[in-house]
Amino acid sequence: MTDGLQRSQTIWLDADYPDAVRIIDQRLLPFRYEELTVDSVDSMAEAIQTMAVRGAGCIGVAAGFGMYLAALATRGMGAAEADRSLEQSASRLIATRPTATNLSWAVKRQLAGLLGHGNDADRVRTSLDTAQTISDEDVASCRRIGDIGLDLIRDLHDRLGRPVNVLTHCNAGWLAFVKHGSATAPIYAAHQAGIPVHVFVGESRPRNQGTLTAWEMRNAGIDHTYLVDSAVGHLIQRGEVDIIFVGADRVTMSGDAANKIGTYLRALAARESGVPFYVNFPSSTLDPHSFDGIREIEIEERDHGEVTHVVGEVDGQSTRARVLSPESHARNPAFDVTPHQLITGLITERGLCAATPEAVAERFPDYVAKAS
Amino acid sequence: MTDGLQRSQTIWLDADYPDAVRIIDQRLLPFRYEELTVDSVDSMAEAIQTMAVRGAGCIGVAAGFGMYLAALATRGMGAAEADRSLEQSASRLIATRPTATNLSWAVKRQLAGLLGHGNDADRVRTSLDTAQTISDEDVASCRRIGDIGLDLIRDLHDRLGRPVNVLTHCNAGWLAFVKHGSATAPIYAAHQAGIPVHVFVGESRPRNQGTLTAWEMRNAGIDHTYLVDSAVGHLIQRGEVDIIFVGADRVTMSGDAANKIGTYLRALAARESGVPFYVNFPSSTLDPHSFDGIREIEIEERDHGEVTHVVGEVDGQSTRARVLSPESHARNPAFDVTPHQLITGLITERGLCAATPEAVAERFPDYVAKAS
Repeated sequence: MTDGLQRSQTIWLDADYPDAVRIIDQRLLPFRYEELTVDSVDSMAEAIQTMAVRGAGCIGVAAGFGMYLAALATRGMGAAEADRSLEQSASRLIATRPTATNLSWAVKRQLAGLLGHGNDADRVRTSLDTAQTISDEDVASCRRIGDIGLDLIRDLHDRLGRPVNVLTHCNAGWLAFVKHGSATAPIYAAHQAGIPVHVFVGESRPRNQGTLTAWEMRNAGIDHTYLVDSAVGHLIQRGEVDIIFVGADRVTMSGDAANKIGTYLRALAARESGVPFYVNFPSSTLDPHSFDGIREIEIEERDHGEVTHVVGEVDGQSTRARVLSPESHARNPAFDVTPHQLITGLITERGLCAATPEAVAERFPDYVAKAS
Repeated sequence: MTDGLQRSQTIWLDADYPDAVRIIDQRLLPFRYEELTVDSVDSMAEAIQTMAVRGAGCIGVAAGFGMYLAALATRGMGAAEADRSLEQSASRLIATRPTATNLSWAVKRQLAGLLGHGNDADRVRTSLDTAQTISDEDVASCRRIGDIGLDLIRDLHDRLGRPVNVLTHCNAGWLAFVKHGSATAPIYAAHQAGIPVHVFVGESRPRNQGTLTAWEMRNAGIDHTYLVDSAVGHLIQRGEVDIIFVGADRVTMSGDAANKIGTYLRALAARESGVPFYVNFPSSTLDPHSFDGIREIEIEERDHGEVTHVVGEVDGQSTRARVLSPESHARNPAFDVTPHQLITGLITERGLCAATPEAVAERFPDYVAKAS
C-alpha cells in the first residue's frame, strides 16, 4: 500500500524492503494506487505477464531488476549451478512478452555480465549495478527524447499561436518507463516550458491503457480529452490534431515500428491529412536483428478474455464485465507494425532521425555492427 | 417479454397490441432478448434516442411508424389542430438523431401525405399505409443489396478457393433494418447459397454494436471472430480480409458516406492494402441535399457517458462499469465521413454504383432533380 504519496516513478529499490524491488501495481490504475513488493524471479515474471508492470522501457528495467532477484537466488550456489539457475531465470523472463525488445535486451545484458562468476557476492553486486544502470539510462533517454520533442511542439506553437493539440496512443508515459515516458516526454517538457498543450488520449482497447495516460495527464495538470480508438481518424481528418507522438515496443533497422494495436491506423490517418507522426523510444528498443517489421516481428496474441471482457469500476469496486456472448469467438493481437514509410521521424536519445533504413544505419552504426 | 421465440425482424405490428408498434429492445442484446411496446410519439422518440431501435434503416422505419402513432393521437382533432400536432411530432422525431438521413426522409414522406387531411380516419389509414410501405421497401432493398453483394463474394470464392473473409463494422445487420441488413445482406445471401464465409466483427466502441453483429452471426450459424476496433488495420495489412462491407447513415451526392465512427480508418487501411471496400445502403440513405460530406454532414456528438463507461454483464446482470476517472474529460463523436475516393463501390437496391459524383448522378437522376 502507499503511504498516501503517489510517486512518479514505476520501479525502485527501498531500504525497508531488502532483497526485493518495489513497483506501482498498474493493474489497479486509474482507480486505485498501490505499490507492490516483488521478491523473486517468478513474481517478477508474473508482474510482467499480468501487466502489473508494462510498457516498453518499464518492462526492460523490470527484467533487469528481475535478473538481480535471480542473482540473489544463486547465493550459496557453485559457479556451474549458478549459471544454470541464471539461464533458467533469463528464459522465464524473456518468455513473458514476445514482442517487446527491451525485455530480452535487458536480460541478455545482465547474463553477459553474470555468467561464469564464481563469487556470489560479486554476482549480486554486478546484477544490481547493471539493473540500476539500465534504469538510469532509461530515465536519461526519456528526458532527452522530451527535449527533442519539445522543439517540435515549440515550433508548432510559434506557428499556430494557440495551444498545440497532441495525439498519443496507449500509454507510453512515465508509467511505461521509469520516469518521463517516451511519447509523453515532449508533452511534459512543453508543459514545464509553459507552452500550452492539449492531449487527445485514445482509449486503447482491449486494456484501456489510455486511462493510464489520462491519469498521468490529470496528475500533471495537463489539459486532455479521452476518446474511443475509432474516433481518432475523424479528429485527424477535421484538423484537430497538430502532432502525433507514439511509443514503440520494437523498432527495426528499416525504421518499422511495432507498437500497441491501432498505431498503424493512426499513422495512415496522419499521412492522409499531413499530420506529423513521430515514434519515440530509447535506443534499447531498436532491434539490430530485424529489418522488415511486417514479415519479421512476432505479434503477441494475448488472452481473449481481454477482448470479451472490460475491466471498470462499479460502486467503487474493480469489476470485470463481459461484453461479448460466450458463444462468439474472439482474437486479441496486442501490437501492429507501422511501416517506416508512414513515420515522419524517430525520436531517440541520439536525436531526431528519419525513418529510413539509411538514416537508421547512419545514426546507429553500433547496431549495424551488432547485427553482423 | 418474448414468447420464447426470437424473431429476425426489428419492428412490426401485432394484432394483440392495437394502436401500438412492437420492437426488439436492442439495448439489452446480446445478453437478453426482449420485445417492447411503443404506443406514442414520445415513447418512439425515446426508443430512437436511447437506441432501443437503432441503425440507418430501422430508424427510418421506426420514424415512419412514429408518424402513424402521431396520426393516432390526432383522432378527434380538426384539420388545423391535427396539422399542428403532426408537425410537432415530426420535429420531435427528427431531433432525436441528427446524422441519420432515413429518419428525416421517412418523417417528411409521412408529413407530405398527412398535412391538410380533414378526416382523422383517413390520416390514420394513410399514415399506416405509408409506414408499412417504408418498411416493405426497406426489406426489399436489403434483399436486393444482398443479391448484388453475393456476386462479389462468389467471385472471390471462385478465385480464392477457400472461405471468404468479410470485414464489417458496427451493426448494419438485420437489427439495423427491418430484415437482412445492408452490410450483412451479402453475407446472409452467401451463407444461404452455400458459399463459405467467415466474418470479422469489430467491437465498435463506445456502444459495442459489434456484439449485435456477433449475435446475428451466431444465430445464423455463420463463422465469425470478434476483435477490438484497433485490430482491424493489422488484419487488413496481413491479408486476412478479402472484402469489406459497411453500412451508412448518410451518403452524399458525391458518394461520401457518413457511418459509425471508425469507418474512415477501415477505409484507409483497405485502400492501403488493395482490399475492396463497399458501402451498402438503401437509396433512402442518399441525401440529395449534400455533396461534400466532410464539410456538410453534421456529426452527432453523443453522451460522454457512453465513452467513460462500458455496459457489460456481471453475474448475469447488465452492469455499467466506469472505465475513465471522473476527473478526465471525454468526447463522443458518433460518426465519421469516408470520402468517396476511398470507396470501391456503393451498393443500393438500384445496383452497384461507382462512388463518384458522376456515377451517383447517373444512377440517381431523381435525387438530382430533388436537390434543385
